[in-house]
Amino acid sequence: MARALALARLAIGLSEPNPRVGCVIVSADGSQLLGEGHTQQAGGPHAEVMALRDVAQRGNSATGATAYVTLEPCSHHGRTPPCCDALVQAGVSRVIASIADPNPLVSGAGFARLRAAGVQVETGEGAQASRELNLGFFSRMVRRTPWVRLKIAASLDGQTALANGASQWITSEPARADGHAWRARATAVLTGIGTVLEDNPRLDVRLAETKRQPTLVVVDSRLQLPPDAKLFMPGRALLVYHATPDRDARHTALEAAGAQLVCLPGQGGKVDLAAMLQDLARREVNELHVEAGHQLNGSLLREGLVDELLAYLAPKLLGPGRPMAAFGPLDDLGDALALTFTSVEPIGADLRVVARVTGRDRF
Amino acid sequence: MARALALARLAIGLSEPNPRVGCVIVSADGSQLLGEGHTQQAGGPHAEVMALRDVAQRGNSATGATAYVTLEPCSHHGRTPPCCDALVQAGVSRVIASIADPNPLVSGAGFARLRAAGVQVETGEGAQASRELNLGFFSRMVRRTPWVRLKIAASLDGQTALANGASQWITSEPARADGHAWRARATAVLTGIGTVLEDNPRLDVRLAETKRQPTLVVVDSRLQLPPDAKLFMPGRALLVYHATPDRDARHTALEAAGAQLVCLPGQGGKVDLAAMLQDLARREVNELHVEAGHQLNGSLLREGLVDELLAYLAPKLLGPGRPMAAFGPLDDLGDALALTFTSVEPIGADLRVVARVTGRDRF
Repeated sequence: MARALALARLAIGLSEPNPRVGCVIVSADGSQLLGEGHTQQAGGPHAEVMALRDVAQRGNSATGATAYVTLEPCSHHGRTPPCCDALVQAGVSRVIASIADPNPLVSGAGFARLRAAGVQVETGEGAQASRELNLGFFSRMVRRTPWVRLKIAASLDGQTALANGASQWITSEPARADGHAWRARATAVLTGIGTVLEDNPRLDVRLAETKRQPTLVVVDSRLQLPPDAKLFMPGRALLVYHATPDRDARHTALEAAGAQLVCLPGQGGKVDLAAMLQDLARREVNELHVEAGHQLNGSLLREGLVDELLAYLAPKLLGPGRPMAAFGPLDDLGDALALTFTSVEPIGADLRVVARVTGRDRF
Repeated sequence: MARALALARLAIGLSEPNPRVGCVIVSADGSQLLGEGHTQQAGGPHAEVMALRDVAQRGNSATGATAYVTLEPCSHHGRTPPCCDALVQAGVSRVIASIADPNPLVSGAGFARLRAAGVQVETGEGAQASRELNLGFFSRMVRRTPWVRLKIAASLDGQTALANGASQWITSEPARADGHAWRARATAVLTGIGTVLEDNPRLDVRLAETKRQPTLVVVDSRLQLPPDAKLFMPGRALLVYHATPDRDARHTALEAAGAQLVCLPGQGGKVDLAAMLQDLARREVNELHVEAGHQLNGSLLREGLVDELLAYLAPKLLGPGRPMAAFGPLDDLGDALALTFTSVEPIGADLRVVARVTGRDRF
C-alpha cells in the first residue's frame, strides 16, 4: 500500500479535479508485482485501469491477483467506465482499498459491486494517508466547499509588506519556487483585486514543473480588473467573482478578454465569499490556493472560510508594516484563531510552516 | 572529544561565569577511560581537575595518559590554581584541546606552558562546537560584551500581546518551561521597567531545574521600580540600570530592598544601553537573556545590540496587537534586520525558532 500511496502522489497537479489514486496489482501470494499505475488527467484513465494496462503490457495476467488501491474503485460511469467492472473483468480476486469514496451518494457502492462479483474486499490500510492526500477532494465531496489554503510570505515578525507596500521580495527564491509547487497542486488560485491593482501579478506556475495551469479566481466586487492585467493568459481559465449585477461596458470588456464573470453579491456591496466557495466546489475545485493581501485574507478568516495556512517565514525583522491578515482587534486571548502546526520545513534560508485551523479537517 | 563536549554541556547553568568545559582522560593507546569531569560552579574545580580526581578515585593513574579537553587548560591562578600544572604533575603526556582560550591576554599561554613541560599538544578537534557552547564567554572575552539573546513569545502572525496588553499566555506550558531552561543557562536575565510595571513578573527559573538563579537586570531610566515588586527575591542579585544621577529617596528605598543601582545616563534621559552591556561584561555576564516588551526590544535592535532571537511561535493568529519589537517603519526591504535561522524545534504545540542576527557571531 505504501507503493500505491507513492504512486498516488504522482497524480498531484495532474489528476485535478479527480482524486489522486494509486493502484498496485500483485500476484495472489504477494510475491510478484504484476502492474501499477495512478490517476491520469481528468477524462483519462483512473489508477486501476492504468495498473491493469501495465499488467497486460508486462505480459502478466491479473487472474486471481490482488489489487491494492488507495481509494474505493468507482462503480459509476463518469468520464470513464467503472473501474470495478475493469477489475472484475480482469479476474482480480481480492481488492485492498484504503478508504471509501467520500461522495456520500456513491460511497460503498464500489465495494458492494466488487463483492457482488465475488471479489474479496478489505479496507482501512493507508486510509489516513489517502484522505490527507485528497483532502481537497474529500472536502468538496463532503462539505461541498474546496479545501482553502492561504499562502502567506512574511518576515519572522509577521509582516507581509512594509507600510509603504513594498513586498517584493520578502522571501527568497527557493521559497517562491516552493510556493509555485503548491500553486501547481491546487485546482485554482485565488487572489483579490487589491493585489492585482497593486502588484499586477501573473499568479501562474513558472518556478515549478506542471502539466497544467490552475484556474485563476479573482475577487473583484466592483469589477475594477483591467482587461490588460497580466493575469489574463491564453489557455488558463479566469473566473471573476463580483457584486455588480447591472451589466455595463466593464462586463463586456472583461468577457472579451477571456474572463468568466460570476455575480454573487453579499453584504455591503461585496462578493459573498461563502457562496463563492460553494460555487467553486460546484466547479470541481478541490484545493483552493489563496494568495491575496491582508484585507481579503482578513475577510476569509473572519468569515471562518480558511482551512490551512501555508506560511513562509523569512529570517528578517521588518518592524511595523502590513499584517498577515486584517482582523480583530481581539479583546481576549481566548478569541485567537487557533491553529495546529502540521509541518515545519526549512526552504532555502526561509522557513515553511503549514498550520491548520484547528478542527477544520474534521469533516 | 564527543564525550568531552557532552560533559561540557553538563556545566550549562552551573559554571557561569566560567566557560563550560569537559575533560576526558584516556590511556595512551586510547583503549581505556581513566577519568572524566566538567567545570563546576565558579570557584570550584575546572574540568581537568575534576577529571584527574576521577582518575584517582577510580584507582587509575594518569601517567602517560592523554587528556581530551574542550578548551585550552588555564595557565594562571584565578579562583583556582592553573590546570596546566595539575595535568603536568599528574604525568599526562598528551593534551588534545578543542580551542584556545578566547581571552587575548592568555590565549595560547596554556598550550605553551604544557609544551614547555614536555606535554604533546594538539588542537582543533571540536573547536566549533566548543565555541558555540561558550559563545557568551567568547563574546565577553573577545568583544567585551555579553551574547545578547532576545526571547520573544508571539503568535504566528508576530503579535506578542493584544492591543489591550493581554499576553498571558500566548504560548503554552511546554514553551514556557523551555523558556525557563534558557533563562537558567544565562548569566543574567534582563527586562525593562515597562514589563515590570505592567506584569509584575518574577523572571526567575521555576519551570526548569537549576542550581542557581541568574542575576536579574532591570532597565529603569527614571527609577520607577517599586521596592515591593515581585522580582525582589532573597539570594538573587538584582541590578538596576538607571539615568537619574541625583540621589533621592527612591535610590535609598531600592538599595534597602536589595537592588544594586548603576547610573549610566545616555541620550534623552534614557539608560545608555551599549554602556550597560559593557558594564555587564565587566560583571562577568556571558549570556544575557532579554525578556522585555516591544519598546526595549526595539531600542536594543535599533542600536544593534542584539545577537540572537529566541522566538516561540504559538499556533494562533491574533490580528493587530503588539509587535515583537518597536522599530522602523522601514522604507526599503533591503533595510530589514537580517537574521539566520539556526534551529527550529516543535516545543509542545508551539514552535521554537532560534535566529541569529546575521554576522553577529563572527568575532
